Amino acid sequence: MARSTLYQLVASELRRTIYSGALGPGDQLPTEAELMLSHQVSRNTVRLALGELVNEGLVTRTPRRGTVVRERRPLLIHPQRELRPQPEETREAFAWAVSQEGRAPSQEIEVSIVHPVEEIASRLELPDEELAVVRRRLRFVDGQPYNTNDSYFPLALVADSEIARPGDITRGANRVLEELGHPQVRVVDDIWARMPTSSETERLQLQSGTPVVVYVRVGYDESDTPVRVAVSVLPADKHLIRYELESR
Amino acid sequence: MARSTLYQLVASELRRTIYSGALGPGDQLPTEAELMLSHQVSRNTVRLALGELVNEGLVTRTPRRGTVVRERRPLLIHPQRELRPQPEETREAFAWAVSQEGRAPSQEIEVSIVHPVEEIASRLELPDEELAVVRRRLRFVDGQPYNTNDSYFPLALVADSEIARPGDITRGANRVLEELGHPQVRVVDDIWARMPTSSETERLQLQSGTPVVVYVRVGYDESDTPVRVAVSVLPADKHLIRYELESR
Repeated sequence: MARSTLYQLVASELRRTIYSGALGPGDQLPTEAELMLSHQVSRNTVRLALGELVNEGLVTRTPRRGTVVRERRPLLIHPQRELRPQPEETREAFAWAVSQEGRAPSQEIEVSIVHPVEEIASRLELPDEELAVVRRRLRFVDGQPYNTNDSYFPLALVADSEIARPGDITRGANRVLEELGHPQVRVVDDIWARMPTSSETERLQLQSGTPVVVYVRVGYDESDTPVRVAVSVLPADKHLIRYELESR
Repeated sequence: MARSTLYQLVASELRRTIYSGALGPGDQLPTEAELMLSHQVSRNTVRLALGELVNEGLVTRTPRRGTVVRERRPLLIHPQRELRPQPEETREAFAWAVSQEGRAPSQEIEVSIVHPVEEIASRLELPDEELAVVRRRLRFVDGQPYNTNDSYFPLALVADSEIARPGDITRGANRVLEELGHPQVRVVDDIWARMPTSSETERLQLQSGTPVVVYVRVGYDESDTPVRVAVSVLPADKHLIRYELESR
């Protein structure tokens, strides 16, 4: 491995003060002049080092406030919770997870009937020309746009149910699938990451250099037919996905 | 939601030709001049649209070859596999997953004794001043740097074992933990994403605009003591993490 350059060393020391908690969210880093003095380096080196931390999403820089450690309070996503038997009155998984943390969930929902794109149609094993219902949700935490979740269902399956009607389903669409005789007994979760599209950047009000985690769950019923494909787009600085597994 | 601008519409049409498979990895997109003509837009609009696809990691642009669809053959990571009983001769999980796909795994390994950073020490529940053994691996697929995996173990636990000695452990460190009387019976997996640090960019030869997925597994023994913290840094364009869950 090549030797670190000077600015990388400075970046690394600053990173350590953040990860160690010595500097917490909202705290200001020393000024450029102070860093030049304390690390005995040029202004250019200081700027490269700070640029590195901006790029990693650790700090933000504004002319007025200087360099400030970013708020990091990721929402913990527990993909396994959705699968456990829920009490009758339970709200759907996102609202539940957010309220658990003492924060206020809300959402905008839009229900459409679509020819899904190939990526969705193939996961839903939908024959050509078959339509799907998509429930597109933009979710907010404490009034801030937080993530999106688009859930696709075969139209033939859900046409006569609440899933195909606009508006929120308080008990969750999964419960409606159960009532229709298609409980999801197995799910496959795919997780990857990428840079956001420009419409995602706008919709989710992302700061530049923030990747998104894409989390796709395909739910299968007892006859192993896919009945739901849910695509979540999670800004990477605000979400942490956690699985707990036991060996058998 | 705001209306899409012209370049976003062009980007969206190009994206569809890629996701649909009409253009596959290595295929060239039409030239700027051709796109101006076919979409009836200005050169500037075409460039903005292509910039968008570069940013998303879908294509690369070089003066000589033009715009080319990127190779997308993500390695499928199955975090659950590691927990299943393995036949005696099984190789460790990464090598196994890579060979399953008919590709050639290799790695460089470096074993050190360290004061782990706070983030690791707290996950390892390591008292102050206690040391850890870290096995840092840079992994290659078909000779290309692919990802890194740093596994930390309490020094007190593994000091006299192969884990604290340099070099590969063919049967995997997890097997050695079992032999030491500390099989991992429960794991907690945390997954998030961020932009890479400059040393990661260099070490993993990342193309610009490629985020990394960070996957941290903490393994607990029968007395619920953490015995291993494994941090994997997975370039987002080359990895897909998959979990399969059944409802009980």
